[in-house]
Amino acid sequence: MRNLSLLTDLYELTMIYGYYKSGMADREAVFDLFFRGTEELSYAVVAGLEQAIEYVENIHFDEEDIAYLRGLNLFDEDFLAKLAAFRFSGDIQAMPEGSIVYPYEPILTVRAPIFEAQLMETTLLTIINHQTLIATKASKIVNSTTAGVMEFGLRRAQGPDAGLYGARAAMIAGAVGTSNVLAGQMFDVPVSGTHAHSWVMSFPSELEAFRAYAELFPSSCLLLVDTYDVLNEGVPNAIKVFDELAAKGYRPKGIRIDSGDLAYLTKEARRMLDEAGYPDAKICASGDIDEYVLQSLNAQGACIDSYGIGTKLITSYTVPALGGVYKLAAIEDENGVMVPKLKISATVEKITNPGQKKVVRFFDNETGKVIADLIMLLDEPLPDGKPYTIFDPHATWKTKTVVNYHCKEMLVDIYSRGRLVYTCPTLKEIAAYHQVCLGQMWEQYKRITKPHIYKVDLSQKLYDLKMKLLHE
Amino acid sequence: MRNLSLLTDLYELTMIYGYYKSGMADREAVFDLFFRGTEELSYAVVAGLEQAIEYVENIHFDEEDIAYLRGLNLFDEDFLAKLAAFRFSGDIQAMPEGSIVYPYEPILTVRAPIFEAQLMETTLLTIINHQTLIATKASKIVNSTTAGVMEFGLRRAQGPDAGLYGARAAMIAGAVGTSNVLAGQMFDVPVSGTHAHSWVMSFPSELEAFRAYAELFPSSCLLLVDTYDVLNEGVPNAIKVFDELAAKGYRPKGIRIDSGDLAYLTKEARRMLDEAGYPDAKICASGDIDEYVLQSLNAQGACIDSYGIGTKLITSYTVPALGGVYKLAAIEDENGVMVPKLKISATVEKITNPGQKKVVRFFDNETGKVIADLIMLLDEPLPDGKPYTIFDPHATWKTKTVVNYHCKEMLVDIYSRGRLVYTCPTLKEIAAYHQVCLGQMWEQYKRITKPHIYKVDLSQKLYDLKMKLLHE
Repeated sequence: MRNLSLLTDLYELTMIYGYYKSGMADREAVFDLFFRGTEELSYAVVAGLEQAIEYVENIHFDEEDIAYLRGLNLFDEDFLAKLAAFRFSGDIQAMPEGSIVYPYEPILTVRAPIFEAQLMETTLLTIINHQTLIATKASKIVNSTTAGVMEFGLRRAQGPDAGLYGARAAMIAGAVGTSNVLAGQMFDVPVSGTHAHSWVMSFPSELEAFRAYAELFPSSCLLLVDTYDVLNEGVPNAIKVFDELAAKGYRPKGIRIDSGDLAYLTKEARRMLDEAGYPDAKICASGDIDEYVLQSLNAQGACIDSYGIGTKLITSYTVPALGGVYKLAAIEDENGVMVPKLKISATVEKITNPGQKKVVRFFDNETGKVIADLIMLLDEPLPDGKPYTIFDPHATWKTKTVVNYHCKEMLVDIYSRGRLVYTCPTLKEIAAYHQVCLGQMWEQYKRITKPHIYKVDLSQKLYDLKMKLLHE
Repeated sequence: MRNLSLLTDLYELTMIYGYYKSGMADREAVFDLFFRGTEELSYAVVAGLEQAIEYVENIHFDEEDIAYLRGLNLFDEDFLAKLAAFRFSGDIQAMPEGSIVYPYEPILTVRAPIFEAQLMETTLLTIINHQTLIATKASKIVNSTTAGVMEFGLRRAQGPDAGLYGARAAMIAGAVGTSNVLAGQMFDVPVSGTHAHSWVMSFPSELEAFRAYAELFPSSCLLLVDTYDVLNEGVPNAIKVFDELAAKGYRPKGIRIDSGDLAYLTKEARRMLDEAGYPDAKICASGDIDEYVLQSLNAQGACIDSYGIGTKLITSYTVPALGGVYKLAAIEDENGVMVPKLKISATVEKITNPGQKKVVRFFDNETGKVIADLIMLLDEPLPDGKPYTIFDPHATWKTKTVVNYHCKEMLVDIYSRGRLVYTCPTLKEIAAYHQVCLGQMWEQYKRITKPHIYKVDLSQKLYDLKMKLLHE
């Protein structure tokens, strides 16, 4: 694990310097990490917690770092010594990876001396914003097709980490594999890939290229058929080579098409493969595909068994930032009393929710589906199964009484007084949990265009506190 | 430097295994790395070469890597031994960082045994695609204002590397600093940052927060004034604290506004600061700004001395992938003859240019401005100053005769027979070179909306070769 301690905004350091010099460094503070949502981000898939934990575990400023900071001529030696001795001593709660999270719900909360909690803002955001964004996009893509999705985006990722952790996020979301070898090695996930156009071009003819490939990988022969002309050359050449493989007792794996009209080409290719006696040969498609293209290919009856998806997934092309923020929710005053805080804004959606909170999800006892979420203050008792009335905090006359439900607290303990109390699940377990969470959502909330907006209400007590602070 | 050798697509490995087993591993091949362009990417700013070189210098597969690859059950021991002994032995040419590059021009070419050249495809693309994308976006942003631009995007970057190397790319493009401390340390660039809303919220009042900050940083006091109410509280409180600073003999640095109507608020704030005797106090603006917002703020006469730009720059929000590709242009046949290659496609723009090439830029002798670019075959002589007629390769009747010009070859030697022959300039030198390149472009090519399309033509010899191969 690299040391990401300096991968932060300078103002985190000037601020904690300020807290230190003002005698406030040890005041307990609560920060919430959350996102605000848009039509395309009406929900998100939590990812990146494991790397966030690695970051927290590894925070340290070595001599070289301290020397660099000293050279900025902003800080005094006492402060640099305190920084060199940094060790996280607070609490972190977070939603497990794979969870569905809605706008304004804390994905993660930090309660710690403000010196520590403030320092971690930028890096926690970088890690969680990125992986959550990609997991969300990948989840939408994976769930727009019954075919398997392979993550193929490394070359178009925004740098090495984006490729690596983007592949991880895609696996959380249900991708069946990745082309990324380092991701395969680091995260123990299946890697896949066969050959590119350059393979075909480096032989005197496509047929020779296919033959050479089949000879090397007779039992996993998947041929890229669109270097020259898919239907007139690529597929017939592939079938020729498949016949040669079949004569030797091998079943060919299939073909890949990377360009052109994928609906038409795959239907024709399917027909040709079937007629040639290869109904079991798979057709893989790739090339600028996202959830919208998938819907269209589905509607046109494209014959595609698996997809390799690159640019659009690995960059979350249509919305390339989650926009998550990390906001102060409470801070201890000079008398040791926790004072809830909110950030006011002319834009109503930008006003934050004060105090340390929990997120409660209501499940219908009959269907198992989720009904609504409630953000409550930490010390409030959980709804106990009796009919419970919730209301829209932006239009309080809109109420709903929930009956026949059970509740779940969504944030779990990660750190307690500086001690890591959470065991990260395996990537397989996370991916399985994500599928459970998706299964609990009604389809209208998952719809890609104009999804129905899921209810995330505030408890009466939290709402009253917010109103009180706003009027002050 | 991390070892990125396994940060590649699996198919690069299956292909080089194939070349090896087919006895083709040592055949010389030429690959071009280029992008295809769109309206928003009518040109790009080359970046990432230094990291690409670090990657090539560091390619090695250690025992753990070889063990992982062995476990995939795809490769034999001979191949793994060859991989473990990998050392780049070929030539690389590239455009220096900061250069302006146009669609279809090689940014970088590799000529090496195909075993080596193919292996490097994905990683070279990941590095150069990313930094070139961000440098291009940042260049457009920086050039849309006369105010200084600071890169503030780390928290919204697509992972740690995206933040780090995105900051580097922004500096190439002319940003005056970054908030990213690690980028400051690694690339020796100015870091900046003051405080966030949480600083203000963690004090009983805004005024107390400002006072505490001013006391700590009296000679560089820049206050964020939009936590509660910019014009009724933030600016008046800032002026109060500035007066206290002035009484102690300090000149305050200024204010930052991070939300709201930046045009209106900055004009009002400017007036208030001027009236209070602080015409030298700077106004910094931030919050979801990009080149389009800058144009609008300019048009409205916003009073802004510097910008902090985050999400839109660090993700290249409107176009989050460059889409660069790495295509085979030539390969040695079994008789040792280099055979030019092209990739055919139903989409005319996707047909590649065959053979090893160079890029020549024509400059007008009078204005010093660039006139057009010409992609030529490597062995063609440079235009020698005599009138030279170029033509549009997609519409050959469109010709232009260039007179009174001088030429420059854009690709320079980076590696020669495996030896690094290039010394990377400093980031400052790269940024200065980029400004020179921008100064050589007529404004119409740099226009943000509907830019005029710059002429990139093919030499007659290259055009003829392409046509010959297409007809075959």
